[in-house]
Amino acid sequence: MKTTPARKQLGDRIRKLRKKQGISQEELGFRAGLHRTYIGAIERAEQNVSIDNIHKIAKALKVSPKDLL
Amino acid sequence: MKTTPARKQLGDRIRKLRKKQGISQEELGFRAGLHRTYIGAIERAEQNVSIDNIHKIAKALKVSPKDLL
Repeated sequence: MKTTPARKQLGDRIRKLRKKQGISQEELGFRAGLHRTYIGAIERAEQNVSIDNIHKIAKALKVSPKDLL
Repeated sequence: MKTTPARKQLGDRIRKLRKKQGISQEELGFRAGLHRTYIGAIERAEQNVSIDNIHKIAKALKVSPKDLL
């Protein structure tokens, strides 16, 4: 699976914030309106996530989109 | 053309920084390795830009990717 430093940084940041809040990938996906397997792929830096989805995930984690970068 | 607040915020930020640096969409596209018409569409909030391209544009503008959000 192709990846990039940009994807890795984003995925690591999302995983860190999600674990800090004690929620599962499934719960985060539910809150963001995204599938749990997609959340998993983002955290593994496999997805070239779009600005719209960055905002959805930030909202679900109750942080600023900036905080995910 | 479909747009979202997330795309508008990103597009406005990129346009502001680009103009502040006195460079054209063509020059920014050249530096980022992206087409000038794609830069134009991003600034008009018409594109759901990916994390990889956010990083490319940030590098071309010599700012942190965070600064584009």
